[in-house]
Amino acid sequence: MKYCFSKRIQKTPKSFIREILKVTQQPEVISFAGGLPNPSLIDTEGILEAAETVIKEDGRNALQYSNTEGYLPLREYIAERYRKRYGLLISSDEILITNGSQQCLDLLGKILIDKDDAVLIERPGYLGAIQAFSLYEPEFFSVGLFEDGPDTNELQNIVSEENPKIFYGIPNSQNPSGITYSREKREEIGEILSDTDTLFIEDDAYGELNFTDEIFEPVKKYLPDLGVMTGSFSKIISPGMRLGWICAPTEIIDKISTAKQASDLHSNYLSQRIITQYLQTNDIDIHIQKIRSEYSNRCSFMTRLMDEMFPAEIGHTSPKGGMFIWLTLPQNISSQKLFEKAMEKNVAILPGYPFYVNGGGDNTVRINFSNSDEDDIRKGIEVLSDIFADTDKIKK
Amino acid sequence: MKYCFSKRIQKTPKSFIREILKVTQQPEVISFAGGLPNPSLIDTEGILEAAETVIKEDGRNALQYSNTEGYLPLREYIAERYRKRYGLLISSDEILITNGSQQCLDLLGKILIDKDDAVLIERPGYLGAIQAFSLYEPEFFSVGLFEDGPDTNELQNIVSEENPKIFYGIPNSQNPSGITYSREKREEIGEILSDTDTLFIEDDAYGELNFTDEIFEPVKKYLPDLGVMTGSFSKIISPGMRLGWICAPTEIIDKISTAKQASDLHSNYLSQRIITQYLQTNDIDIHIQKIRSEYSNRCSFMTRLMDEMFPAEIGHTSPKGGMFIWLTLPQNISSQKLFEKAMEKNVAILPGYPFYVNGGGDNTVRINFSNSDEDDIRKGIEVLSDIFADTDKIKK
Repeated sequence: MKYCFSKRIQKTPKSFIREILKVTQQPEVISFAGGLPNPSLIDTEGILEAAETVIKEDGRNALQYSNTEGYLPLREYIAERYRKRYGLLISSDEILITNGSQQCLDLLGKILIDKDDAVLIERPGYLGAIQAFSLYEPEFFSVGLFEDGPDTNELQNIVSEENPKIFYGIPNSQNPSGITYSREKREEIGEILSDTDTLFIEDDAYGELNFTDEIFEPVKKYLPDLGVMTGSFSKIISPGMRLGWICAPTEIIDKISTAKQASDLHSNYLSQRIITQYLQTNDIDIHIQKIRSEYSNRCSFMTRLMDEMFPAEIGHTSPKGGMFIWLTLPQNISSQKLFEKAMEKNVAILPGYPFYVNGGGDNTVRINFSNSDEDDIRKGIEVLSDIFADTDKIKK
Repeated sequence: MKYCFSKRIQKTPKSFIREILKVTQQPEVISFAGGLPNPSLIDTEGILEAAETVIKEDGRNALQYSNTEGYLPLREYIAERYRKRYGLLISSDEILITNGSQQCLDLLGKILIDKDDAVLIERPGYLGAIQAFSLYEPEFFSVGLFEDGPDTNELQNIVSEENPKIFYGIPNSQNPSGITYSREKREEIGEILSDTDTLFIEDDAYGELNFTDEIFEPVKKYLPDLGVMTGSFSKIISPGMRLGWICAPTEIIDKISTAKQASDLHSNYLSQRIITQYLQTNDIDIHIQKIRSEYSNRCSFMTRLMDEMFPAEIGHTSPKGGMFIWLTLPQNISSQKLFEKAMEKNVAILPGYPFYVNGGGDNTVRINFSNSDEDDIRKGIEVLSDIFADTDKIKK
């Protein structure tokens, strides 16, 4: 049967990552390919207790339809955390609860992007954002990343010439590169975008997962009217509950709310209630500190092994938080071939080229460290360094 | 601040129903305006037990990321129920789990509708579908409903002349009208659409809520390749858990899956696991029978009072299931004015005109019976009949 699908879906490729993950999920595979939080850091007991309390004490309400914007006490909690953590004054009216932060991108695409609008992302850029925005058929532009954030000369040029509808970026522990923007870069972005029509969409999925106590103010601090932040409980409480949020000026939240009504009425209310109860009865900062120190240990263990075992020409980032390290191989090496060779030895890595909207990046690799223990990290890095010892087999 | 929103969202009005519901949700109001399941029929104890089992026995998995299509045992359960209930042979590959059946409409819009494509719905038609599809900027057409289903002459004409991408309908206990298509109408629709490119999107949110044992085969039975069904656990288990599903040929599921990945990765996995556990350990048919008999009693109580108390020129449908009755007032009466007058006496009804995509319907009313007890039904109908006794005040 031949179906008449929309043009937008015909142009959207199936997620490369999801397809790769299917191959790499066999139990015998050491996988650095995915992006899963470590399951040992999910507080099942705390969540069980919260679920029991909510259903016992207010089950009929918690299981009924609810409002589109989300559960008010949860939105108040999020607003208050912005104040405490980042010094941002946000009201609960500026928060709307979504199905994970991926849905933020879909809703923002819906309310902002017309066909052929210019959309600017980082290079490399988050694949989930490329996918979400693709469905609204924009023209993509990208701005290169240095170790301290975007190339601001390139940014200035693209903003002046293309007047992009949005610039989407992840200033804290970027996915895929692991890069964190410096304070200076944040200020510069604020200056470049102020007095333009370009919204800065600041994905802060990893903001709580910094390894040190150094916290930079969000770009939104410099762009109160043009800044939209997205956040997620996936990395700090549970991804399976699919809860995230958008933080934006109320005029934008108003349109997002209309789009959210049309998309799925409201987010899972039972889970909103459970997470609120969990946050009210547990010290989330102690829990987050545990995740931070675990991930920090794994990350430095892995980068230390890379420094010891990889040839000098293999570059890697040194993340200050998050879940990913980014490798840059010599220009003549193919990360796709590296993927294939490593899979023969049951080690999975993620070739970096899908993170480039205008081609390139075929010598780059994303490595996840959050979901492997030290034994697996050592074994996996050994396999990769053996392959790097004879690069003839992975040449382009 | 002036923002550059997309054309699609500028054309989409805020949901009229949601705005009205805000006014009508004060506790002193007897509301026939909404569409809530009766909270006394939510089995909080059964759901608590299921939640405890899932989190205790497999919490780390149930709270982790999962796959886009949904939890396989749940998809198998749904496929098997289609077989048992409707004699439809469906495989689990043809099922994808969504955030309530509203998300089905958004995903179908995404993969099917290009700007200015013809989309056909019932007249009156479900407002949630009008909203969801509107964001993909189609041209809407509508086909009138008789007591036994669509006007098939009109349907034939529109299909021949406009070649709509989809025809969206609710054959069982339609929202808003309460109408159920006869077997003959279902067959006729099958004949009219076969050998066309028009998909029939068969929303079956109320299929389990029929008041008698008479079950008609779905239209999909007559249109296996062109039939897409949507379903929901909202009306039989819990709306707050936001779980529904699409049932469609695998080529369509494949595109839906790409759109779902981009939209929110996957549906709430914890809730999928809880509902699966609930279905495995409870006899859902006993629970559904309880809902059916409660709703059936309320519906017949309400229509009996309407027959006794309303003037003869007020027409009402006689639903065979679902949650809604449809009133047709004399042409010179305004249902908006009826709404305002009734609200003065703390009774809320829903004016019918938002259910018409091409104007009209301003003398129609949707009445919900599932969420009011007999006392409130009696009081509310008395208030309405008092207003009808002096129609001068509600003339157009």
